[in-house]
Amino acid sequence: MLRILGIDPGSRCTGIGVIDCSAGQAHCVHYRTIRTVAGSFPQRIGEIFSEISATAAQFRPHRVAVEKVFVNNNAESSLKLGHARGAAVCAIVQAGLEVAEYSPNAVKKALVGRGHADKAQVEHMVKVLLNLQDKIPPDAADALAVALCDQHHTETSQRLAQIAS
Amino acid sequence: MLRILGIDPGSRCTGIGVIDCSAGQAHCVHYRTIRTVAGSFPQRIGEIFSEISATAAQFRPHRVAVEKVFVNNNAESSLKLGHARGAAVCAIVQAGLEVAEYSPNAVKKALVGRGHADKAQVEHMVKVLLNLQDKIPPDAADALAVALCDQHHTETSQRLAQIAS
Repeated sequence: MLRILGIDPGSRCTGIGVIDCSAGQAHCVHYRTIRTVAGSFPQRIGEIFSEISATAAQFRPHRVAVEKVFVNNNAESSLKLGHARGAAVCAIVQAGLEVAEYSPNAVKKALVGRGHADKAQVEHMVKVLLNLQDKIPPDAADALAVALCDQHHTETSQRLAQIAS
Repeated sequence: MLRILGIDPGSRCTGIGVIDCSAGQAHCVHYRTIRTVAGSFPQRIGEIFSEISATAAQFRPHRVAVEKVFVNNNAESSLKLGHARGAAVCAIVQAGLEVAEYSPNAVKKALVGRGHADKAQVEHMVKVLLNLQDKIPPDAADALAVALCDQHHTETSQRLAQIAS
């Protein structure tokens, strides 16, 4: 069994999703949105670090996947997002885990089969692949999507290694 | 005695400076540049966190000051800088300390008296105020400058509070 933690960092909302994978199947262990809206900006950044550290300690994932950031033209929001993502990455590295990074297009391609799928299609595939009935908050769905993308890549690499050996 | 840690974060070079202040005087306790050039980007971000955590544990500052980032037009470099700054901020918040933030202009104004002083003038004033003879690496000089700016603001606030009471 392989346990993957997916993270979708943001300065106000950080999505978290934990999946267990085995024999090409995945099931959802946990998902939630960390909301960091109270306190100063440094306090909010510190809270993302604490929450991700606590999540890594509680669920003890084998792998961690984080979505690569889409850099838009707004340098101010890129800077804020960088802080949030830096906090998440620090928490993972401090937990002794490596960070696998996937571009938004790689996530879409792994889940829907096309790099330019829309958000609703990705969310739909997250629910189908994990057999979830309830509506999932968007940030948590993005976190589960990047975890599923990592499952896809890890299993593909394993199969290729088996064929090569 | 008031001990202040100043930090100038960057994704490749992070400057650190520690000063002790008493009766309007300051002296330099420590300065150095943390170079994070080896390893993956997440590893480098994790290293900034570890190094700043270790510095806070070793020198036990009363206050921590970080320069506010000048947002340029390059969203990509703003994002990278955000990661580095997020790592530094996390380390400080985790150490139970608050972060005082100063804009580059506030630092220049506190040290040189004008918000648009050039880098050489700021470095010169850092050496004069701390009575340092040697050439200081630019990132470490910037870290000492933001610590001296925090000293200036803290002592001014204390004087104003004394006058008001």
